[in-house]
Amino acid sequence: MLLTILYIIGITAEAMTGALAAGRKHMDWFGVMLVASATAIGGGTVRDILLGHYPLGWVENPHYLMITCVAGVITTCMAGWVAKNHKFFVSMDALGLIVFSIIGCRVGMDMGLPAFICVVSGLVTGVFGGLLRDLICRRPPMVLHKELYASVSFLAGWMYWAMMHYGINELIATVSTLVVGFCFRMAAARFGWSLPVFRFDAEPENSH
Amino acid sequence: MLLTILYIIGITAEAMTGALAAGRKHMDWFGVMLVASATAIGGGTVRDILLGHYPLGWVENPHYLMITCVAGVITTCMAGWVAKNHKFFVSMDALGLIVFSIIGCRVGMDMGLPAFICVVSGLVTGVFGGLLRDLICRRPPMVLHKELYASVSFLAGWMYWAMMHYGINELIATVSTLVVGFCFRMAAARFGWSLPVFRFDAEPENSH
Amino acid sequence: MLLTILYIIGITAEAMTGALAAGRKHMDWFGVMLVASATAIGGGTVRDILLGHYPLGWVENPHYLMITCVAGVITTCMAGWVAKNHKFFVSMDALGLIVFSIIGCRVGMDMGLPAFICVVSGLVTGVFGGLLRDLICRRPPMVLHKELYASVSFLAGWMYWAMMHYGINELIATVSTLVVGFCFRMAAARFGWSLPVFRFDAEPENSH
Repeated sequence: MLLTILYIIGITAEAMTGALAAGRKHMDWFGVMLVASATAIGGGTVRDILLGHYPLGWVENPHYLMITCVAGVITTCMAGWVAKNHKFFVSMDALGLIVFSIIGCRVGMDMGLPAFICVVSGLVTGVFGGLLRDLICRRPPMVLHKELYASVSFLAGWMYWAMMHYGINELIATVSTLVVGFCFRMAAARFGWSLPVFRFDAEPENSH
Repeated sequence: MLLTILYIIGITAEAMTGALAAGRKHMDWFGVMLVASATAIGGGTVRDILLGHYPLGWVENPHYLMITCVAGVITTCMAGWVAKNHKFFVSMDALGLIVFSIIGCRVGMDMGLPAFICVVSGLVTGVFGGLLRDLICRRPPMVLHKELYASVSFLAGWMYWAMMHYGINELIATVSTLVVGFCFRMAAARFGWSLPVFRFDAEPENSH
Repeated sequence: MLLTILYIIGITAEAMTGALAAGRKHMDWFGVMLVASATAIGGGTVRDILLGHYPLGWVENPHYLMITCVAGVITTCMAGWVAKNHKFFVSMDALGLIVFSIIGCRVGMDMGLPAFICVVSGLVTGVFGGLLRDLICRRPPMVLHKELYASVSFLAGWMYWAMMHYGINELIATVSTLVVGFCFRMAAARFGWSLPVFRFDAEPENSH
């Protein structure tokens, strides 16, 4: 119940940031709705396809897809306001990241998958929406270059998995993962913590 | 039966436009066949994967895949003719769009999915082939920028769904959706009707 | 057994070339692991999704995914050595291509699919990993432009399929396909054999 409310907040915020990315590429309303939806529910979609977990969430419950389309179009009317409240949206995005990671991890656990795959399932849910957004908008995928993002999802997934595995109450596991993950992500954004970068500038590869 | 014939015409025309796009990027014959096939049967493939609707059409019936590969290679020998008859191919593409939308909508209805998802299923079938083509060819996805295309598919899907839902004869529903959708698409191309475009030119986004 | 050992060698080599591609784009460690894994096990993943062949190999056996992640990160420490031994990696990649093609073909045969689809299944397994790598790294997909690569996979798939279909001993079929395919691929790389290229330089397409 708590997760459902947070999930709806999360996909709405993600859809709005997706719509802004579409606006930077001067897309029409269909493009806005597509990028908004891919950003918001693309991660869960990729996860379900990888795990063979059918039917997809938005196929069973079309309201989620309607919410992301509407949120995308509304963003076109209030882009200035969204851009001005940039920090608020960074927080909402961080919240969404942790909520998506927890939900993805749970899907893996409900399917009885190995621990590592459960955490990867949370990671895919949290991260692949933004990856799809950047792919459709033809810009460098931020999550592969920027401060800690995937790592936060990975650690939140392990934390949630471990607490559930060792029998801790579900509400406590969820709330504490949310708090720790959110603070970790906000600190990473604030202080610019990042993973080491791999630079390899030899001559361009000439064969496979 | 009528739909099958129109479907084969549709995938042939789409494969040929896909092959031209590959030629603009100086791809080899394998690239031509890949882009031709992705353009022609990629939309249906994405739909079936999203809906968990297995086996895929071209896995069960490999002739469809052979047709798109052959149509792609033949196009390399008659590119000038195809380019000269550009308007003919715009018509064939419009026909394909409506046929794909109807077929996609039907797949959703046969699976007993909600109305909105049936129409989205038609939309994905009609539109995602071109999206995949543009992604592989690394060019801006046309369907997100240009005159009405996805919208035509969306409206044709609703029209077909409504007629079938209210018990109208299947042949009548199919033919009238084809006629209305085709004319709507050709008019949009002729008069440049398009959706509103969302332009958002603030400073580049700096975080998620 | 032989195939499993060769498969692990193949995914390790592919992961290392994937990591170099990520390094050329200055990705962080998460990006390196993602591109390494997509290059190495992306082809098999796309095949299984297209065929509805669940669970995916790396979901059932997470060790494969761990190997590709670790191989990717290790590559960041020894990029100079990998680049210096470029020819060795071209050989390993050629080996991987044939091993992946044989495995993909077998998956299709075990599912009882038509011959053409079995060979396409091997082709997707062998080729789509590199395609995903180039898509994520935003560079022109090599396999669509360069010397014979997909064609080698295609011919190796037919050879394996035919030998198995006509009852030849499995070990003989596997080893002879490996030898012939490997030599063919190395000769194509050495002598620059390639498919005809389709160049189409008319004015840019203006409609669908």
